[in-house]
Amino acid sequence: MSEDTGPSDHTPLSQTEKRFADETFIVREAVSMFGATARSEELGVVLGPGDDAAVLDCGGAEFVVVSCDSAVEGVHFKREWLSLRGFDAADVGAGAVFCAASDIAAMGAIPKTVLVSAGIPARTSAAEAGGLLRGVAEGCESLGAAVVGGNTTSSPVIFVDVKVIGATRGRRFVRRRGARPGDAVFVTGELGGAAAEIRMLDAPEGGGAATVRRPPRISVGAALCGGAATAMTDVSDGLVMDLGNIAAASVVGADVFAEKVPVSGGADLRDALVSGGDYELVFTAPPERAGEVGSISERTGVRITRIGTVTDGGAVRVFGPAGEIPASELGAGGFVHNGPA
Amino acid sequence: MSEDTGPSDHTPLSQTEKRFADETFIVREAVSMFGATARSEELGVVLGPGDDAAVLDCGGAEFVVVSCDSAVEGVHFKREWLSLRGFDAADVGAGAVFCAASDIAAMGAIPKTVLVSAGIPARTSAAEAGGLLRGVAEGCESLGAAVVGGNTTSSPVIFVDVKVIGATRGRRFVRRRGARPGDAVFVTGELGGAAAEIRMLDAPEGGGAATVRRPPRISVGAALCGGAATAMTDVSDGLVMDLGNIAAASVVGADVFAEKVPVSGGADLRDALVSGGDYELVFTAPPERAGEVGSISERTGVRITRIGTVTDGGAVRVFGPAGEIPASELGAGGFVHNGPA
Repeated sequence: MSEDTGPSDHTPLSQTEKRFADETFIVREAVSMFGATARSEELGVVLGPGDDAAVLDCGGAEFVVVSCDSAVEGVHFKREWLSLRGFDAADVGAGAVFCAASDIAAMGAIPKTVLVSAGIPARTSAAEAGGLLRGVAEGCESLGAAVVGGNTTSSPVIFVDVKVIGATRGRRFVRRRGARPGDAVFVTGELGGAAAEIRMLDAPEGGGAATVRRPPRISVGAALCGGAATAMTDVSDGLVMDLGNIAAASVVGADVFAEKVPVSGGADLRDALVSGGDYELVFTAPPERAGEVGSISERTGVRITRIGTVTDGGAVRVFGPAGEIPASELGAGGFVHNGPA
Repeated sequence: MSEDTGPSDHTPLSQTEKRFADETFIVREAVSMFGATARSEELGVVLGPGDDAAVLDCGGAEFVVVSCDSAVEGVHFKREWLSLRGFDAADVGAGAVFCAASDIAAMGAIPKTVLVSAGIPARTSAAEAGGLLRGVAEGCESLGAAVVGGNTTSSPVIFVDVKVIGATRGRRFVRRRGARPGDAVFVTGELGGAAAEIRMLDAPEGGGAATVRRPPRISVGAALCGGAATAMTDVSDGLVMDLGNIAAASVVGADVFAEKVPVSGGADLRDALVSGGDYELVFTAPPERAGEVGSISERTGVRITRIGTVTDGGAVRVFGPAGEIPASELGAGGFVHNGPA
């Protein structure tokens, strides 16, 4: 937040508040309520809640894959960012598309169509409202997806909720479950860049050089779905937390070697380990398929780095030069973008 | 709003502000941006933006139909309603499901699976947050649909966005376009009840007898899709406005006879003509198929009333005992729940 702004209605919630709402009983309660539907099979539900996206059998040669994600003013972005050089409302719209499409990529599927809901306060300028929706359209276009519908509503704060409908190739998809002890852990691209950019947007002199559009790893995800990856998810909440989701779903652990983790320019190791929003993919594969993973990296032009190993323990451990890095030094993990607001 | 509450942060926006955001340039701009996608056919888009729901060809024997809708605190419901007798957060959750599913019904399709995004402020009690999500689950269960995923996020205000994924029977669906001069205009159920209930919730002594869950007309919509209906939409924004959407899409007009319009108990004619949220269906059918429409009414147990005729004019006109009711007496139409807040 810029120094001359001071406290405002748009101050993002503190990390504590945010995590309370995001990560506690609500999600667990929702999954427990939503997961139990006797008619799921009859309705064509191949995979319900609890993974990056749901998988549906709609009778075609491919499965339908669906996911959604929201960007909310004061939580995922600050209103004052919209007036910064190098960032505008279109970046929020495109970011919401990329965030939801990243969940589709993490299943090894391809985004095809999009529904968008936008909440737009009456005080919003035509430029901002139009920019938001233009960003959604641009984000979809860059992914080769079509916006097929949605709705706009008045709202006390700006929000964009994007639902992406994708398709598997054939009827294959990759879950969070499936990692086996001895598998290698890989990550695409570099991590921590989103956290570094948020610091830049929040700098007293404002942003300027931020490149906030991070397209999801669609091609890599689809290629890895060909058989190499045993488990996959996207790095949305931070590497340690997201890899932890793979470990929990697969009933395994993982050891990560800090010096192997690819760190974005402007970011530090802690950003790369525990901050979210990079929309890279983290996945596991048998070590003997490392060559295939390398070929996919070459073919798609996306860096893929081996950062660790799946263990039969129950936790994700990170090792630095001095041995294991205590969890307390990593913070609670996840969504630690820029410390308490 | 109860008298002892006074002005609060949760006062819904005035109708003017609301309509500004909902009904003006933003929607038009969005549709114009989103409608143009060269690859639509390749992506399986059978029907894009501009109708009640989008229709996708995912390779199965049936088309996939998708729509979404949001309920936002301070716009679609008031926070203080949540503590009223006879209304709780579950009603908001179920209402959001019914609202989105009503769009699927209006295509003549069946809702099958649901994604839900919920924005939940940190100040929200566990009972409220849990109730909201329970309402979503209950709403889906009552429709025979399964929740397959979603996300919760922190947010400055409560919002629920529901996306419903449905299926046509065979590859048939009913659009807003298709009404022909001479067709009869029909409406299901009774109108104005939602407006009457909102007045009750806003009464000084609070609610108590409100029955705010209005299941969408799934069975009727699907039956009408068998050939009787030439055009259909749901009554979400008010009869005159919604029938106006059919007229505009079909390039026709319609004459409605006020004394024929079925008015809910507690509501008046104006509620029935211009207030929204009833989630009934309004549709057109050739007069010679009135018998078939009657059979559908009997079979489903849902009242269906003939209220007018499609004309070759370009507008919806309402006739009372004294002749045509001027548009000015109907208000601007749509979303006139309870007058300016």
